[in-house]
Amino acid sequence: MASDTGTDLAAPARRGPYAKTAKRRQEIVDAATNVFATRGYHGGSLRDISRQIGLSLTSVVHHFPAKSDLLAAVLENADHSADWFLDRARAHGVKSAILDVVRHNLDRPELLRLLAIVSSEASDPEYPAHGWFVKRYENLAAELERDIAHDIQQGRVPSDVDPEQAAHLIIAVWDGLQLQWLLDPAQDMPGRMDRALDRLLG
Amino acid sequence: MASDTGTDLAAPARRGPYAKTAKRRQEIVDAATNVFATRGYHGGSLRDISRQIGLSLTSVVHHFPAKSDLLAAVLENADHSADWFLDRARAHGVKSAILDVVRHNLDRPELLRLLAIVSSEASDPEYPAHGWFVKRYENLAAELERDIAHDIQQGRVPSDVDPEQAAHLIIAVWDGLQLQWLLDPAQDMPGRMDRALDRLLG
Repeated sequence: MASDTGTDLAAPARRGPYAKTAKRRQEIVDAATNVFATRGYHGGSLRDISRQIGLSLTSVVHHFPAKSDLLAAVLENADHSADWFLDRARAHGVKSAILDVVRHNLDRPELLRLLAIVSSEASDPEYPAHGWFVKRYENLAAELERDIAHDIQQGRVPSDVDPEQAAHLIIAVWDGLQLQWLLDPAQDMPGRMDRALDRLLG
Repeated sequence: MASDTGTDLAAPARRGPYAKTAKRRQEIVDAATNVFATRGYHGGSLRDISRQIGLSLTSVVHHFPAKSDLLAAVLENADHSADWFLDRARAHGVKSAILDVVRHNLDRPELLRLLAIVSSEASDPEYPAHGWFVKRYENLAAELERDIAHDIQQGRVPSDVDPEQAAHLIIAVWDGLQLQWLLDPAQDMPGRMDRALDRLLG
């Protein structure tokens, strides 16, 4: 999986063919995020993606030979903020870290829509990214479980909270509130998540 | 929208062309549920659906002129159990009614997958069933809010619970736990939902 797209772009001194390739790849990944987010993975074609950025299909296929390679790059790109979340959760607690991500996500409905569609499609074991999504949820739950246990140690969360259960319920309510917000953007997603966390970690 | 498919089939004495039409429609709706559940709405074609039950495309189009008609029929069919839920919630409380539905849903992963995919896709305002899904979530939340208020009146739920907030959080955690279960069927979905309801209505 291509995990270097974002960091390559972040290095401003890079020039020449490498920088150009990285820029082109990122353009394709952004276009794919958009197309998959509106038409789903099965419904969006490499042709749609190449058209959106005025590239030839051959050029897209040169960077991403199969549609599933492109999906992998889109998903990796979407999960880039994981390290930042970790630091924040350790320093200020799970609740504060989650609410920061929720507020940050208000600016990227297309990406949330894509993740919602593709994670639902990927629940089918036949789906190309099935394993990736199963692993993603396992990792998310395990990480959150550790962070909640840490919060209990620090006295930020009462000790009658079961970290494993709470982790799964928090991920669930988070996914569900995102969906409700995507359907009706007038919903106060951070406010609702705040109350959910008080109940689930209270 | 075709809302008579299920009830027509439930009347065993029906014979002749009407019964045949109803049976054929239900076959098509079942096949469409399956195809949309595995390939999404955009990814599944009328041709895939007709192939699955060995019908001609013309025959499918005769019953459902547009793919969006078929999606409407599938969604109506999926929401058939609403009245039953209502009665149960009034008699035994929201928690008991929800856990009954969650247990019942263990037998129909394909339908849950379809609803998860299509509700995510439908969050895009351009999507054919967008209005239907926005309305569905509004109705669900309003109904649950009334049921929780009733539970508070009956002393089944403490009066510091905000029915409007709790309704949205319950729907969210429910959607999210279904997704986690679809990805990993070893998850104890009813057990997790039980704990979520204790926290959100406790």
